[in-house]
Amino acid sequence: MGQVQRWIYPAGLLCSVILNVVFVVLYVQVNSKWKPDWSKSAAKEAEAVAAVTCSGHGRAYSDGLVIDGSPVCECNTCFGGPDCSQFSPHCVADVESGDPLFLEPFWMQHAASSAVVIMGWHRMSYSYSDRSTISQELDKLIRKLHALVGNANTTGRFIVFGAGSTQLLNAAVHALSPHNSSEPAKVVATIPYYPAYKSQTEFFDSVHFHFEGDASMYMNSSTSNTTSTFIEFVTTPNNPDGKLSKAVLRGPNVKAIYDRAYYWPHFTPIPAPADDDLMLFTISKLTGHAGSRFGWALVKEKDVFEAMTTYMSRNTEGVSRDSQLRALKLLKVVMEGSGREIFEFSSKTMNDRWDQLNKTLSVSKHFSLQEITPQHCTFFQQVRTPSPAYAWLKCERKEDKDCPAVIRESGIIGRNGTLYGSNSSYVRLSLIKTQDDFDIMLHHLNKLVSKEK
Amino acid sequence: MGQVQRWIYPAGLLCSVILNVVFVVLYVQVNSKWKPDWSKSAAKEAEAVAAVTCSGHGRAYSDGLVIDGSPVCECNTCFGGPDCSQFSPHCVADVESGDPLFLEPFWMQHAASSAVVIMGWHRMSYSYSDRSTISQELDKLIRKLHALVGNANTTGRFIVFGAGSTQLLNAAVHALSPHNSSEPAKVVATIPYYPAYKSQTEFFDSVHFHFEGDASMYMNSSTSNTTSTFIEFVTTPNNPDGKLSKAVLRGPNVKAIYDRAYYWPHFTPIPAPADDDLMLFTISKLTGHAGSRFGWALVKEKDVFEAMTTYMSRNTEGVSRDSQLRALKLLKVVMEGSGREIFEFSSKTMNDRWDQLNKTLSVSKHFSLQEITPQHCTFFQQVRTPSPAYAWLKCERKEDKDCPAVIRESGIIGRNGTLYGSNSSYVRLSLIKTQDDFDIMLHHLNKLVSKEK
Repeated sequence: MGQVQRWIYPAGLLCSVILNVVFVVLYVQVNSKWKPDWSKSAAKEAEAVAAVTCSGHGRAYSDGLVIDGSPVCECNTCFGGPDCSQFSPHCVADVESGDPLFLEPFWMQHAASSAVVIMGWHRMSYSYSDRSTISQELDKLIRKLHALVGNANTTGRFIVFGAGSTQLLNAAVHALSPHNSSEPAKVVATIPYYPAYKSQTEFFDSVHFHFEGDASMYMNSSTSNTTSTFIEFVTTPNNPDGKLSKAVLRGPNVKAIYDRAYYWPHFTPIPAPADDDLMLFTISKLTGHAGSRFGWALVKEKDVFEAMTTYMSRNTEGVSRDSQLRALKLLKVVMEGSGREIFEFSSKTMNDRWDQLNKTLSVSKHFSLQEITPQHCTFFQQVRTPSPAYAWLKCERKEDKDCPAVIRESGIIGRNGTLYGSNSSYVRLSLIKTQDDFDIMLHHLNKLVSKEK
Repeated sequence: MGQVQRWIYPAGLLCSVILNVVFVVLYVQVNSKWKPDWSKSAAKEAEAVAAVTCSGHGRAYSDGLVIDGSPVCECNTCFGGPDCSQFSPHCVADVESGDPLFLEPFWMQHAASSAVVIMGWHRMSYSYSDRSTISQELDKLIRKLHALVGNANTTGRFIVFGAGSTQLLNAAVHALSPHNSSEPAKVVATIPYYPAYKSQTEFFDSVHFHFEGDASMYMNSSTSNTTSTFIEFVTTPNNPDGKLSKAVLRGPNVKAIYDRAYYWPHFTPIPAPADDDLMLFTISKLTGHAGSRFGWALVKEKDVFEAMTTYMSRNTEGVSRDSQLRALKLLKVVMEGSGREIFEFSSKTMNDRWDQLNKTLSVSKHFSLQEITPQHCTFFQQVRTPSPAYAWLKCERKEDKDCPAVIRESGIIGRNGTLYGSNSSYVRLSLIKTQDDFDIMLHHLNKLVSKEK
């Protein structure tokens, strides 16, 4: 016994002391790691919401409904139930809007780098420290982004921020309209055009500008034989048909607003940096954050820049500083890895969808799609096959004059061609919504086409 | 030795084992505490920024300049240096703007409850799940808040959100103007009035409305002898003079827009819940978050609500969802402890400032302030002494016709009375900026008044 004790106790003590040392090291290590202080409860709350996965067919939000302490799932179209797992096979595919949710999975995969913590006293003032309503850090980052992607020349350009490009459309029209003329500026666009040009310009009915419809009505020198000012909206690539359009009017009284919302490698090859006098961009179609309402204008002329800045001030006192903070964070993620990550994700998604849609409709004689030719892209440094944001579907049969009704009968809601200044033999199908929306649309289209046989 | 060993080893072992158990418990405890996952880096970044205290005379921001990895302090007026500790005693007090920074310390004290974590995929869509652009949770919370404070009746009212009340002012004018009449609505306000009514209405020059200036010009039945529509802006309490004003025009063609930005216990006793047909509110003057650009309208008539909603959609596609999320969080903090905490902080601050200013000017024969009578407040359930947002200073001497220049010479920048439709014997001094701004203004005013002797 005595002999055994002589060994057991010292050996046990030695082991125990070593264990103590190990625990001290572990404890110090764990305890010295950074732990959140005041941000903890907000972080915990957000992570709890993010942990609600909604079966991959929906998502919960921090500002959504909470029932019995649990955030409620908001399901994709055609999915339901508490966890969005119930699929309604006969449900209608709603591909009417340009909701850019195809990028949602990208941001879920980049949760850590894209999260923003806003402290309670963040930017309470009306102005930044330089007395403007524009974050200079964001201004700088936007210029870097355009240089990286090579889609716009920002040298010598002024930047105006807006609540999406929506607010900037009218700010630009307002700024380009003459304010000393008795005749209002004629606002025009080439058919098919984005419906907001008409609806917005008509809604903000002014003594200084008036929507006049189709730009081609004023071609053939009629713009130079008049004192009227013309303001031409040019969307490029075009919404709805994806064409790399250019202004059709020329003359000393003609001004163009280049809406370049879709001029990103997601949707089009980038042949060269755009260099127009007035260009509009928006994160809605770049990062997919339509809800944040953030866009910008690149403006060459100082007086136009100043007029647009006054518009922003009179209209809303600038853009929400919270949106500007978020845009800053999101654009930093966009620029990670020289932008390859997001643009490869997005262009692959859009290209896959276009290929599947094309394959489905290639056997159809009743329906056709717009043609888009592959082109060299300076960003990817290769020829890129089409990846447009929208399908501009045409019903080819004479009896199918109401194309939206024809596809509606087969369970697909698109947007009527008449809204684009065109006619109802056309319908726009959005390809940028969720994967569920796209899959259900394709399912219904396949059924529709198979009936032709 | 043997005897000693017999005691030392077992006792040592026992102690060491107990220590081990303690460490295991501590380690498990520390390790099982909630730790941030994807939100960690954003939280760490924000807390590092918040830790930069800038000597209490400035603050650093997450979207501010960073030099050598350190967030740069943005100092209050008259303070400088890397940590804002250098005071410039001869510097000018800028109390021109209505920047509501007096509430900044409140939010710094409530860092934990007011922080917001926005995940990368938060509300990317154009709409909430009910297809509107308005958060229903925020709509509900705003109604609860008005019920708690007792400053507005929301029963049966519709709510429209805007980018601050600024955007809602013109949305309301637009909605109340007749669109089938050849004559534009006459937009008026009683002098002294908030300058934006004039500058905004004139800037958005429309065929449907026109700014006509002083409301009192149209009193005495001239409103009922004409087919013209009148739209009267009423700010109550009034900016600049804090009076609880009412509309002065009456008649079947008269419509009023009640701007109730300052109708909170910070600035005025609340005699009763407001019950006007169209009322505007904004967080700028409630929580002090002018930079977030968030306001709301309470609207009685359905057609006015619908017209304003269309305006919001055409103008900006609604208000930033990021601002809505932040407003939701901030208003939750406002409602903590039945609102006593923020309203006691704010009304005490404003009341103290008014008292100090009054004391300074009470000995002056050259300068006078507006008179505000104490009144019973239903929120505090007691008579409240004045706590207005602005001083409406009058230069009493005939030779001091240019009052802004007189005080400017003494190192104070105020806003010229002419901007309010009044004359330059008046100047508005903002009392809602930082404590530094107020203190420096008071210092210069004391010097100015002491010269009178």
